[in-house]
Amino acid sequence: MPQKATFYHAGCSVCLDAERHLATALDPSRFAVEIVHLGTDRARIAEAEAAGVASVPALVIGGVPLHINFGAALTDVKGAA
Amino acid sequence: MPQKATFYHAGCSVCLDAERHLATALDPSRFAVEIVHLGTDRARIAEAEAAGVASVPALVIGGVPLHINFGAALTDVKGAA
Repeated sequence: MPQKATFYHAGCSVCLDAERHLATALDPSRFAVEIVHLGTDRARIAEAEAAGVASVPALVIGGVPLHINFGAALTDVKGAA
Repeated sequence: MPQKATFYHAGCSVCLDAERHLATALDPSRFAVEIVHLGTDRARIAEAEAAGVASVPALVIGGVPLHINFGAALTDVKGAA
C-alpha cells in the first residue's frame, strides 16, 4: 500500500511551482500524495503545524517535514484568516 | 527516457535526511536521479550555481532548483575548499 505524503501549500506561485515539479514527481507506486491548500482548508493548519511545517510549500513524507524553497511562513498563512 | 533530476548535497545531516526521504522517492520510470556531493565533487559547484542552487540540499528538476530545508549555503560550501 502506498505510503501517505502530504503537500501543503497556500496557492502562492512558489507553491504552485513546487507542486508542479515535485509533488507530481513522486513514485505513485510507493506514495499517495495528498495536496492540501491551507489558505482554503484552514482547518488543517494545526495538522501541518503538528507535523513540523513552518513554511509553505512543504512536503511531509515519512513523517518528516521538507520545506521546499520559501513561499510564506505558516504564521503568515494563519494570520491571513 | 527518464528526465534528469540532480540532487546536490554536502554531506550534512539535513542533506542526508532529504536524500533519504525525497531523492529516493521520485518516480524511477520518469526521473533518473543523480546524487552529487559538492563537498567531495567540487568541480560541480559551478554547475549547481548556474542551475540556481543557493543552498544545499537542493533538487534540480525540470530545470527548476528546489531548495529543501536548509543545510548550508552554497557560498559556505565553496568557502570550505
